[in-house]
Amino acid sequence: MAGDPHPPAPLLHAAIRIIEVGPRDGLQNEAKAVPAAAKITLVDGLVSAGLRAIEVGSFVSPRWVPQMADTDQVVAETRHHGGVEMPVLVPNLTGLERAIAAGARSIAIFAAATESFARANLNATRAESLARFADVARQARAGGLRVRGYVSCAVHCPFEGWVDPGEAATVAAALAEMGCYEISLCDTTGAGTPGRARAMVLAAMAAVPAERLAVHFHDTFGQALANTLVCLELGIAAVDGSVSGLGGCPYSPGATGNLATEDLVYMLEGLGVETGVDLDALVAVGAEISRVLGRDSTSRAARPCKACLLRSAGDRADQPDR
Amino acid sequence: MAGDPHPPAPLLHAAIRIIEVGPRDGLQNEAKAVPAAAKITLVDGLVSAGLRAIEVGSFVSPRWVPQMADTDQVVAETRHHGGVEMPVLVPNLTGLERAIAAGARSIAIFAAATESFARANLNATRAESLARFADVARQARAGGLRVRGYVSCAVHCPFEGWVDPGEAATVAAALAEMGCYEISLCDTTGAGTPGRARAMVLAAMAAVPAERLAVHFHDTFGQALANTLVCLELGIAAVDGSVSGLGGCPYSPGATGNLATEDLVYMLEGLGVETGVDLDALVAVGAEISRVLGRDSTSRAARPCKACLLRSAGDRADQPDR
Repeated sequence: MAGDPHPPAPLLHAAIRIIEVGPRDGLQNEAKAVPAAAKITLVDGLVSAGLRAIEVGSFVSPRWVPQMADTDQVVAETRHHGGVEMPVLVPNLTGLERAIAAGARSIAIFAAATESFARANLNATRAESLARFADVARQARAGGLRVRGYVSCAVHCPFEGWVDPGEAATVAAALAEMGCYEISLCDTTGAGTPGRARAMVLAAMAAVPAERLAVHFHDTFGQALANTLVCLELGIAAVDGSVSGLGGCPYSPGATGNLATEDLVYMLEGLGVETGVDLDALVAVGAEISRVLGRDSTSRAARPCKACLLRSAGDRADQPDR
Repeated sequence: MAGDPHPPAPLLHAAIRIIEVGPRDGLQNEAKAVPAAAKITLVDGLVSAGLRAIEVGSFVSPRWVPQMADTDQVVAETRHHGGVEMPVLVPNLTGLERAIAAGARSIAIFAAATESFARANLNATRAESLARFADVARQARAGGLRVRGYVSCAVHCPFEGWVDPGEAATVAAALAEMGCYEISLCDTTGAGTPGRARAMVLAAMAAVPAERLAVHFHDTFGQALANTLVCLELGIAAVDGSVSGLGGCPYSPGATGNLATEDLVYMLEGLGVETGVDLDALVAVGAEISRVLGRDSTSRAARPCKACLLRSAGDRADQPDR
């Protein structure tokens, strides 16, 4: 193999689905609230850039997450985009009713891999929260909505520390059983490293078919892209990203948030993997929402040294990685 | 394998050598010059943090790189550290004489993989520059100095675009032939992605034993840690890093520089790989040099969200990744 100038990465799919979560997971964690008009502009821009799955908002209680209080308006004014999956986060039946009233066609539910995070985040035991989400999923599907699932703290829990991969896999299997078309495995704190990401995904793949799994890494410790890569090399074909690295932590301005979608697209483009996303257009969308938030993008591919960019744009197109 | 909670990464070594290049490759690319005393404090701190290979400066012409004009002083006041490899960059015989006069015991030479970069950076053809460095290496080794080699533009050239892995391997082989104890393969622009990094390293490993190779990635596009990981999984056991991500580009304040050593150490610690480096001590050293430079660290592991850090420090030590 050493003689082969371009050995393919093991199991890497020729095309990867990117789920853009910036408008929800990103903005809900930004210190500065964003007006609905800017959110709608963001979603429209993401669609124009080629994203075909965008989490546009959340119907959790505005008392908990004021940044998402205008999600009904965002849904109403973006649902016209055809062929784009636009889940909204829903914590319970009340949220589901609001989502349906707003015209959402797809929802996302979120179960925790640990008891402590379930109690802190959902005010219920893990089993209670799964039972609650099973009701939500049942009624949503009965109403013709598609349901996506998240496993929070699939790698590390801020209260319990490292999470047994088997626990994350058990929750992923429960969400699959509820009929979630896709289950996103989240390293909520971003503390994970590639070996733990590999172990977590291998356990999940033993419980749920890989084609129904996605990965979702936060870049708190700079590990998100490396963690994502090992999962892709194991056969995962769907990745959550957040344009401009939206997210961070309201309590720590310096902290980075989700994996920046731009850095993910740059890597996949370089690997010759199809994403359907126009990187230059995506960078422009990220620059605009960063301007609205009054902060720098945490994406690196979005603002490389100009001298380093010399020639490389053309090369990206001319000479795929493999 | 899916049943194994902690599958080892393929070929990952149990211990990895980290070569800290911040004092040279980092500081020479920072817009703000740093006084010799601060450089000496930086090197002393890096040694205290556990680094055993530190590139402390450069003897290129001060007309080219004024930031390195005081390297003789830095060498003189740091050479007392026992058991620490401290190469200084040397472009020619004049530089070698200055290095020897300053008391350096180890030098680094740098050849380009492409003709265009050799002409731009070394004002010579690639063959001429290799012949020049062969003389430098011969005289250095005759004087009892150790010689490390760099292959610049091993993946991408700002003038020629993507580089044929075979060309980088040819230059690496030439440096090995000159007696370099280690050859560091550099993605100088940081444009590379994991497939190209893999192809480059596989070609180099076919020409030079893996144990004499190191990798050196810039994080311009956010790819450095992912690129490093694939090389480690191919059996590379030496990685260049720059504390606090020192480097960047003087012409582009937002641009990121070398792979941040903190992010590398965090990943390796998580993978259960020995580095000998104390991450907390290293973070403190990076914070101090960032303060001197008046800029934020570009390391992510160095400034994670405090809430995310909860429990994880203990976990890092208590429960290695594999």
